[in-house]
Amino acid sequence: MRTVIRRLGEALRALALITLPALGGSAWSVAWAQSPPDLGTPGAAIDDLVAANRILYRQGVVDGFGHVSIRHPERKDRFLMSASLAPGRVSKADIMEFDLEGKPIDQRGRSIYSERFIHSEIYKARADVNAVLHSHSPTVIPFSVSQVPLRPILNSAGFLAPNVPVFEMRRVAGSGSLLVTDSMRGKALAETLGDRPVALMRGHGNVVVGPTVQRVVARAIYTEVNARLLIQAITLGGPLVYIDAEEGRAGEGNRDRNEAGHGTDRIWQLWVEEAMGTNTGTNETKR
Amino acid sequence: MRTVIRRLGEALRALALITLPALGGSAWSVAWAQSPPDLGTPGAAIDDLVAANRILYRQGVVDGFGHVSIRHPERKDRFLMSASLAPGRVSKADIMEFDLEGKPIDQRGRSIYSERFIHSEIYKARADVNAVLHSHSPTVIPFSVSQVPLRPILNSAGFLAPNVPVFEMRRVAGSGSLLVTDSMRGKALAETLGDRPVALMRGHGNVVVGPTVQRVVARAIYTEVNARLLIQAITLGGPLVYIDAEEGRAGEGNRDRNEAGHGTDRIWQLWVEEAMGTNTGTNETKR
Amino acid sequence: MRTVIRRLGEALRALALITLPALGGSAWSVAWAQSPPDLGTPGAAIDDLVAANRILYRQGVVDGFGHVSIRHPERKDRFLMSASLAPGRVSKADIMEFDLEGKPIDQRGRSIYSERFIHSEIYKARADVNAVLHSHSPTVIPFSVSQVPLRPILNSAGFLAPNVPVFEMRRVAGSGSLLVTDSMRGKALAETLGDRPVALMRGHGNVVVGPTVQRVVARAIYTEVNARLLIQAITLGGPLVYIDAEEGRAGEGNRDRNEAGHGTDRIWQLWVEEAMGTNTGTNETKR
Amino acid sequence: MRTVIRRLGEALRALALITLPALGGSAWSVAWAQSPPDLGTPGAAIDDLVAANRILYRQGVVDGFGHVSIRHPERKDRFLMSASLAPGRVSKADIMEFDLEGKPIDQRGRSIYSERFIHSEIYKARADVNAVLHSHSPTVIPFSVSQVPLRPILNSAGFLAPNVPVFEMRRVAGSGSLLVTDSMRGKALAETLGDRPVALMRGHGNVVVGPTVQRVVARAIYTEVNARLLIQAITLGGPLVYIDAEEGRAGEGNRDRNEAGHGTDRIWQLWVEEAMGTNTGTNETKR
Repeated sequence: MRTVIRRLGEALRALALITLPALGGSAWSVAWAQSPPDLGTPGAAIDDLVAANRILYRQGVVDGFGHVSIRHPERKDRFLMSASLAPGRVSKADIMEFDLEGKPIDQRGRSIYSERFIHSEIYKARADVNAVLHSHSPTVIPFSVSQVPLRPILNSAGFLAPNVPVFEMRRVAGSGSLLVTDSMRGKALAETLGDRPVALMRGHGNVVVGPTVQRVVARAIYTEVNARLLIQAITLGGPLVYIDAEEGRAGEGNRDRNEAGHGTDRIWQLWVEEAMGTNTGTNETKR
Repeated sequence: MRTVIRRLGEALRALALITLPALGGSAWSVAWAQSPPDLGTPGAAIDDLVAANRILYRQGVVDGFGHVSIRHPERKDRFLMSASLAPGRVSKADIMEFDLEGKPIDQRGRSIYSERFIHSEIYKARADVNAVLHSHSPTVIPFSVSQVPLRPILNSAGFLAPNVPVFEMRRVAGSGSLLVTDSMRGKALAETLGDRPVALMRGHGNVVVGPTVQRVVARAIYTEVNARLLIQAITLGGPLVYIDAEEGRAGEGNRDRNEAGHGTDRIWQLWVEEAMGTNTGTNETKR
Repeated sequence: MRTVIRRLGEALRALALITLPALGGSAWSVAWAQSPPDLGTPGAAIDDLVAANRILYRQGVVDGFGHVSIRHPERKDRFLMSASLAPGRVSKADIMEFDLEGKPIDQRGRSIYSERFIHSEIYKARADVNAVLHSHSPTVIPFSVSQVPLRPILNSAGFLAPNVPVFEMRRVAGSGSLLVTDSMRGKALAETLGDRPVALMRGHGNVVVGPTVQRVVARAIYTEVNARLLIQAITLGGPLVYIDAEEGRAGEGNRDRNEAGHGTDRIWQLWVEEAMGTNTGTNETKR
Repeated sequence: MRTVIRRLGEALRALALITLPALGGSAWSVAWAQSPPDLGTPGAAIDDLVAANRILYRQGVVDGFGHVSIRHPERKDRFLMSASLAPGRVSKADIMEFDLEGKPIDQRGRSIYSERFIHSEIYKARADVNAVLHSHSPTVIPFSVSQVPLRPILNSAGFLAPNVPVFEMRRVAGSGSLLVTDSMRGKALAETLGDRPVALMRGHGNVVVGPTVQRVVARAIYTEVNARLLIQAITLGGPLVYIDAEEGRAGEGNRDRNEAGHGTDRIWQLWVEEAMGTNTGTNETKR
């Protein structure tokens, strides 16, 4: 009997895939709602976004909460982000499209992240930004609640130089919910961020932005690593040598030069393989 | 249509429950003593309790010790808990039924937890509580033996505001065993807990309670996370900003509103999949 | 060609198994040199010893170094221990027999641990001891090189009360090798240990003893856990409440009473399953 | 008899090396560019180098960055190192040959590590060195940016006695990129290293050298472990007992004596099995 029910369900799902396009909706949203092998995807953006979700979970930057988005590659006034799901469970079919007011283009009953205004307001304020992450990255929390600024001591976190601003919700909306659930709160956060790559959110987590989702993922991971190492360095005591602004700029320049063998792509491929459970195998793909 | 299928499944399960008693023994205990594929289960409670045991182990809240219970969904004067087993090894067939004196209804020679009075006395004292956990959650131990109170600095642990009481067995029973092995000790612990969600037990661990087992599991995990982060924040030094009572209440309110995309269900599904080794796969189930 | 060579090797190995007994050697040593499915083993001791090696590795008490032994169940003047191997790689066939001078009974060219005198001298000095572990348990090292004594703050580590002695090789043999490579050094270590369950070895690790190998494994794991938690408690600052001698004794008493559901067997079964990659599955075996 | 078989295999491999050059290209480069099952390899060096890459990743010494090399076993003026790849993804076919100016012998379009001058300049300066590692080993970073010297407290890290020098790029090239991307910077680093086994690089990582790649891997792993334990010991406070120079020398002597059961080979085999996903299984290979 159970088998009958299961088969019935499968038949219904197949039927939905055939009939959905007839009900309207853009090619994008139809494609996203379906499983990847059946229909072509609109490019690498969705693949990268799914990988970013999985990587951030595997590397301990997010747990069941947090969300990462990519600005729509063809429409600068839209962005792509998963429906409300734990990042470690996001698949292609979960990716939705939002406008810069945080409104989903084609919701179809799906639950969405209440803090999507973090993304929409930063995309509005920062034309240079093509990817945004909000996370509860654990080790940034102690810095967000103390007077000690998060500063870089690690070359790979040089983008944090000279230090990281902290967003305090109480200054914006008084004591109460710490969630960024509307445009006003999102705008205030974007102002704290200014033109930096990272801002902490007091008692909550951080926001990380960048020109590509690969860079955002790398920045988020090394922000967490740097926070751990800085706490250890402070434990040792005495004056510390921080990565200065010039070293930070040089480090970011090296990241951009993938041909020099020090770019983000080397480590991105490793992260993708591990998070997606794939191994490209061939030498060609590896480099 | 999906709803129809789901309801059909539920009806079949209900039918099994009705016919089982005719075979002798209460529907509950018969179902529990047998392996899940053979017979229907009396509802989601046992599934949730098994998942809770496995999740708490996988997330490092319990090791081979500790126990979690659910108040009987149909009999408020009883609770469900595993026979004496490492939580990571608990299966459906291990779940037993206890009365509020900690007496097993149908022991059949099975070994039982000596500290079951933690559960029975809290269920007696707290009508609002439907799930109880006792754990040796590692990082709460330092707070249980020091003068520094465990306070929340993380939004996800806002339920700890303003701080967490510590149960001292020496005040109850003098120096000796730290185990809560009778009703007198269980009652004293319930008094220390009062109307809070968490109490530490000096040199031993903690007790975590809540309206559902999902909330108890989430509270236990974030209590551990918050303890780790607070130690790091204290290492940084200087005054810290804690989650205040109003922020704590707002955070709990957000947990209750699953429709807002910030509820416990999002992370619960992730934990279940990982701890039970299942991946539901379909989009429907994920959200 | 390679295949031919491989087959030749297999044939030779089979031949050796048939002819070995004829060359003499006790039933024990013959059995140990062969793979378990072919011949019966002399009881549970070897199984337990293999499991102990694997568990200690999996739980992070040993890395590639360290060794654990069991006093021979039938000959009190002998003990069983692996040939010189990383504990995580020990199998039944690697278990050898030693006398109380640390001399292997039937070496047959196998490499042996240079620090076996830790074991032989403790078995000589302590009739109550049936299992001995030497490990480089990481977090005991800081306590071994500082003036801060390792004291229990965790009920599960109550056996450490009131504190743990530290063996200093410089007092025994001056500055030089820290290894216990002869009877003189082993005897000095046994003297530092006295009648306790654990002694630290400065800059090196610890030695853990007990009435059974299960208790030694549990003691070693909780010694490591307690060391981690004590460092965290000291980070918090202020006076700490330690497990006192009476609480320690009560805790050990609870360990002995497996029927009370708080014994070592509950967690031992979990550790065995995880370390040996087996899951007994049935309800019967679990309890 | 086993020895005969092993020698036969070695002879076959040698034969392959002799006949390969006739097919054009040096035996080395031809062998390296192809996948291992098809052609024999020029010996254990490449196998060891691939294993070293994988082990260093698995043990947390490197992440997606860092590189390890072996001096060419037959040409002292060359060294072997992977093309620019995350160490955890390196295979035999990725190993390239470089001269002591850091020039690849046969690049064929492959991307190469920009910091290869770390290796070339150390091989020039240190005739005793046959393997070099550059890593971002996390816990050495705090010591590299503080005034507290990294000193050994753990016997397995005795080679660090009396302490570890720190390379400061600002003294060599002013503030800017921290990368060692030319011979001048590589030479300055080699001078800071002097005749030691390890030097830290401020805000960047470390360099570890030794007579064999096995020793370099072991040194790198225990440098990281020692750094973690030293931070914990400093947290405890008060004067610490360090491994002194004589103890350090004795420890290194024990490493050299594999026959004494305390050599690097015991732990190397464990690391290889875990990192390469192989288990040799037989008793013969294990010891």
